[in-house]
Amino acid sequence: MKRPEPRSHCPISSALDIFGDKWSLLVMRDLLFRNKAHYREFLASEEGIATNILADRLARLEAAGLIERTGEDPRSGKQAYLATAKGQDLIPLLLQMMLWSVRHDPRTTAPDALIAHLEADLDAAARAIRREGGVQAFLESL
Amino acid sequence: MKRPEPRSHCPISSALDIFGDKWSLLVMRDLLFRNKAHYREFLASEEGIATNILADRLARLEAAGLIERTGEDPRSGKQAYLATAKGQDLIPLLLQMMLWSVRHDPRTTAPDALIAHLEADLDAAARAIRREGGVQAFLESL
Repeated sequence: MKRPEPRSHCPISSALDIFGDKWSLLVMRDLLFRNKAHYREFLASEEGIATNILADRLARLEAAGLIERTGEDPRSGKQAYLATAKGQDLIPLLLQMMLWSVRHDPRTTAPDALIAHLEADLDAAARAIRREGGVQAFLESL
Repeated sequence: MKRPEPRSHCPISSALDIFGDKWSLLVMRDLLFRNKAHYREFLASEEGIATNILADRLARLEAAGLIERTGEDPRSGKQAYLATAKGQDLIPLLLQMMLWSVRHDPRTTAPDALIAHLEADLDAAARAIRREGGVQAFLESL
């Protein structure tokens, strides 16, 4: 998949060229925070992504260098997806998004301990989530 | 404009329900970083937003409580848009997006002094940009 020309040299616009839609960052959330790695796991997330949209977003994220595919598992025949370093570098941005919603939208939910750590030092929480491989593992490490 | 039901209670999904597209956050960028306030100013940004898309995004951002309209200017007859506190709270998220792109996409450009401040203390830079009313005023205040 060839990346189209950027709309401008603005870094915000450039980022939105890659993931400015309703689904791409949910796939990254599943990979980075929820320890998901397989197509069926992304498909099972509560937002109910359609299979054709998921396939498209995975291809785009791979083309943009945010995720990569492992070889097929010899037992299951399935491929796994994992975040590259570039994809992992989205963790602070996703945590800012989480914090913003929790502050402004009472319909959203997140673990109190996680929010407390984001409020106290978001960058430190981002590093710990990255190191532990997800939010659940981070919370269990506290 | 009535807000549709959220796809889930996930705060990331909820945020993307509001601004998960290629244009909404560029309007917020113009308001928060570039001191723009008028329809024609948003329309003039380098990404070339179409007028119907701009009108739609302004209505959605207002319905979501991120921006508000002032009364008409008695001289020009024009309305101005400004970010609410909820909208201003997107500044750290937009700065994270900027930093991510600058680190990973060599085609993007941003002032060196700004990036140095984001690298050193993003939250402090966010507060200063908010206080000064934009990136240019922030840079001139250094």
